[in-house]
Amino acid sequence: MGGMTAREAYAWLENHSKESAYLGAFGALAGWDQAAYTPRKGHAHRAKMQGTLARLLHQRATDPRIGEMLAVVEGSELVADPASVEAVNVREWRRSFDQQTKIPERLAVELAQATAEGQAVWEEARPKNDWEGFEPVLRRIFELTREVADALGYEKERYDALLDQYEPGATAAQLEPVFKRVREATVELLQRLEHAPRRPDVSIVHRHFPRAAQEAFAKEVIARLGFDLEAGRLDPVAHPFMMGIGPGDVRLTTRYFEDHFNPAFFGTVHEMGHGVYGQGLLPEHYGTPMGQEISLGIHESQSRTWENLVGRSLGFWRYFWPLAQQHFESLRDVRLEDFHFAVNKVEPSLIRVEADEVTYNLHIMIRFELELALLRGDLSLADAPAAWDEKYREYLGVCSPTLADGVMQDVHWSAGLIGYFPTYSLGNLYAAQFFRQAEKELGALEPQFERGEFAPFLDWTRRRIHHQGSRYWPRDLLKNVTGEDLNPEYLVRYLGDKFSALYGV
Amino acid sequence: MGGMTAREAYAWLENHSKESAYLGAFGALAGWDQAAYTPRKGHAHRAKMQGTLARLLHQRATDPRIGEMLAVVEGSELVADPASVEAVNVREWRRSFDQQTKIPERLAVELAQATAEGQAVWEEARPKNDWEGFEPVLRRIFELTREVADALGYEKERYDALLDQYEPGATAAQLEPVFKRVREATVELLQRLEHAPRRPDVSIVHRHFPRAAQEAFAKEVIARLGFDLEAGRLDPVAHPFMMGIGPGDVRLTTRYFEDHFNPAFFGTVHEMGHGVYGQGLLPEHYGTPMGQEISLGIHESQSRTWENLVGRSLGFWRYFWPLAQQHFESLRDVRLEDFHFAVNKVEPSLIRVEADEVTYNLHIMIRFELELALLRGDLSLADAPAAWDEKYREYLGVCSPTLADGVMQDVHWSAGLIGYFPTYSLGNLYAAQFFRQAEKELGALEPQFERGEFAPFLDWTRRRIHHQGSRYWPRDLLKNVTGEDLNPEYLVRYLGDKFSALYGV
Repeated sequence: MGGMTAREAYAWLENHSKESAYLGAFGALAGWDQAAYTPRKGHAHRAKMQGTLARLLHQRATDPRIGEMLAVVEGSELVADPASVEAVNVREWRRSFDQQTKIPERLAVELAQATAEGQAVWEEARPKNDWEGFEPVLRRIFELTREVADALGYEKERYDALLDQYEPGATAAQLEPVFKRVREATVELLQRLEHAPRRPDVSIVHRHFPRAAQEAFAKEVIARLGFDLEAGRLDPVAHPFMMGIGPGDVRLTTRYFEDHFNPAFFGTVHEMGHGVYGQGLLPEHYGTPMGQEISLGIHESQSRTWENLVGRSLGFWRYFWPLAQQHFESLRDVRLEDFHFAVNKVEPSLIRVEADEVTYNLHIMIRFELELALLRGDLSLADAPAAWDEKYREYLGVCSPTLADGVMQDVHWSAGLIGYFPTYSLGNLYAAQFFRQAEKELGALEPQFERGEFAPFLDWTRRRIHHQGSRYWPRDLLKNVTGEDLNPEYLVRYLGDKFSALYGV
Repeated sequence: MGGMTAREAYAWLENHSKESAYLGAFGALAGWDQAAYTPRKGHAHRAKMQGTLARLLHQRATDPRIGEMLAVVEGSELVADPASVEAVNVREWRRSFDQQTKIPERLAVELAQATAEGQAVWEEARPKNDWEGFEPVLRRIFELTREVADALGYEKERYDALLDQYEPGATAAQLEPVFKRVREATVELLQRLEHAPRRPDVSIVHRHFPRAAQEAFAKEVIARLGFDLEAGRLDPVAHPFMMGIGPGDVRLTTRYFEDHFNPAFFGTVHEMGHGVYGQGLLPEHYGTPMGQEISLGIHESQSRTWENLVGRSLGFWRYFWPLAQQHFESLRDVRLEDFHFAVNKVEPSLIRVEADEVTYNLHIMIRFELELALLRGDLSLADAPAAWDEKYREYLGVCSPTLADGVMQDVHWSAGLIGYFPTYSLGNLYAAQFFRQAEKELGALEPQFERGEFAPFLDWTRRRIHHQGSRYWPRDLLKNVTGEDLNPEYLVRYLGDKFSALYGV
């Protein structure tokens, strides 16, 4: 770029990044619409639309001019301070450009085809418990994913290259001891709970909860928690998610069951946690890394915080109980404490997405350990179902009569999302560690929740986490906010204290 | 394009055209979402998204390679038969490329800015009847629009260059005698109706019509008419429209008033007419002119056909009356004939969008005549309000006490849509002429409607109109389908017969 200044190169990169973000926002909106409102016969057309946009965005992301502009700006005065907006953006543009250009187009296309096929095969094979039918395409996906990891490069462990895509800087070596500590403490806690003198009466949450009342209650709750419904929506879908379209437009989705209070309510509060992160990003940095979420793990820390540390706390329910009883006739003869116990029931089970706060991490660790063994070549796919069952027996004391509820329950592997699962437990770990720090600075939070004061805590997460965008990688953000590296003791202590008290053990 | 064959150049053009269509479909979807579901605070972001996409699509539409490819393919064997798919597509690609590249970028940007400002000023000035406040920006819009017309070029009349953008091939010289005939016949018919012995009891359509019942009834009706609700949707918005996202995804919108039956119902049937055109385009030609609607006038002919010639016919209501009475308690004591008369009330009024089938065209002609005089320089903008009032008095015998309900009632001019209004009346003219031809081929249609048989007529419009895409320009399509040039006698006779009978004159 003869004669171009660093400032000019930066301006080009910024404009290129923002334009891609605005175009990408159409893909996000169309994805939301696919889940919520696309007519049945419109899906084939939508797939072609998304394919065209994905190709365009891939071309833009690998445009050789990005490399040229980065070369001009890197090492210049403009990025001398590594904490400056410019330095952060350049660092992340470089990271993403390298990731995108390291993967040969041939490999990207093959993986896209394999995962498209993989998900279709999985959908058909799962209800038939047909591992043999699923294994060939899954083997192909693992082979291609290994190639991707090799193309991206890693220091110690092939798995790290994959994990790093979702959680920048995270490594298996860092996670293994942390997860081991959580696993052992959880298994020990579960053994104590098993002999607890008290049991929750879960029939309470299986009474009748009319859909309209659920929706009205959930909207009122998330509004009081601080989600801005004028800058977002809540719509019903089959498989709930949060979709950030951009500043002022952050969409939550949920799914209603009239005979079960938990899924829609806690699902909505969970997505609302993702949503306040989206609403907390700084609009002036929209379309650049400084205005983007840093990782899946940090994202999940926000959703888990609101779902569990806030939404399943006694203080929360003390505040919202009158409103709940007003909305739901079926709760009018229920004691608050019994309801709170019922929504905090702990029980080892087969299905990850239905697991409680305590056992959830064990589901993740099983997947993490299997992925690691598969990637290392210590386990073959043929032996994966048996290894799955063994770990479920050992950690959770349960065994699935079907593969559909066992090794075939998740869509992730068929979609090529290998190295993704750990971010769920990282979310729980970060959440507990952040929460403890917030309490150090703001005082005990539950009494605040009991008074309906959620703003101080939300503001704290805004300032310390959301406004930071991608300034820090997760581990550095954690250190920056809490003064400490990732420490499993916060989660271990939180779960131990809460459930020992609830179950009286 | 050294060494490139016509076939290769055509393939490039086809691919370029389809990719633009898929990207454009995101804009359509986002536009629909803006009207239906975008949260209040998300609109600023949406405008930026749309701006980015519009720039990208403009770049693609003016890509110099299009000109190079067209030069290779034009005059080749591939397009020797002017009715072939290839020849049609090449003809329309050329037309659109020339239109887009003839307008200098400076002018396009200035007009975009002026119309953005124009709409904002109009929204503010209209409720204040502030013509003086509106006039400066409107003058600028007319000046720039004149420049656009000059850049596009024309033979006889500057207005034709504008009209041609919306209705290919149409000219003021062609429209003037046709409109004159309709105007004179309408004024004469209105005079006869004024002294009619019978009057409709419109209080019938102002009873209570619950929103949910209106929606259920409208959905049932459009489904029976042939709109595929699995390949489309119906949603409430403030300003209704139809939006075709693509094959299998055609969206109607409407607006409900519980104290007035007509707006939502006939509005929905109107949009459904646009929608069946969208659903009738051939998916194999999606993204090329052969799979696109040819003009606004032809589009409007389909919506007016279903709204008026079908939806306001006695045969239609004979068939749907039991269903209507089932959905609406307030209609159970009403005679079918009284209801049919009430939804066909004719009365000169001030507001175009609320006008009936007979007077509607007079509203259009007033606008057409004023636009023509303004473009020719025979009328100044300062004198436009007086000229407007004069024509309303002369043609309709009404006079608006406010400018808001007079010369400032439409958004079109402030949006730069000059030369657009005639397509509304062209729609009515085409509709009557097509309908008569359909009856020649299929036999009298009302008795078929009375038996609930809408498929033969819908199939006829599919084959003769929708499947043709942009094969013929409107005038040629009309000749091709009806064997005749545009002839106002069909509309004159239809309106005369229908309303003379209804009013007993």
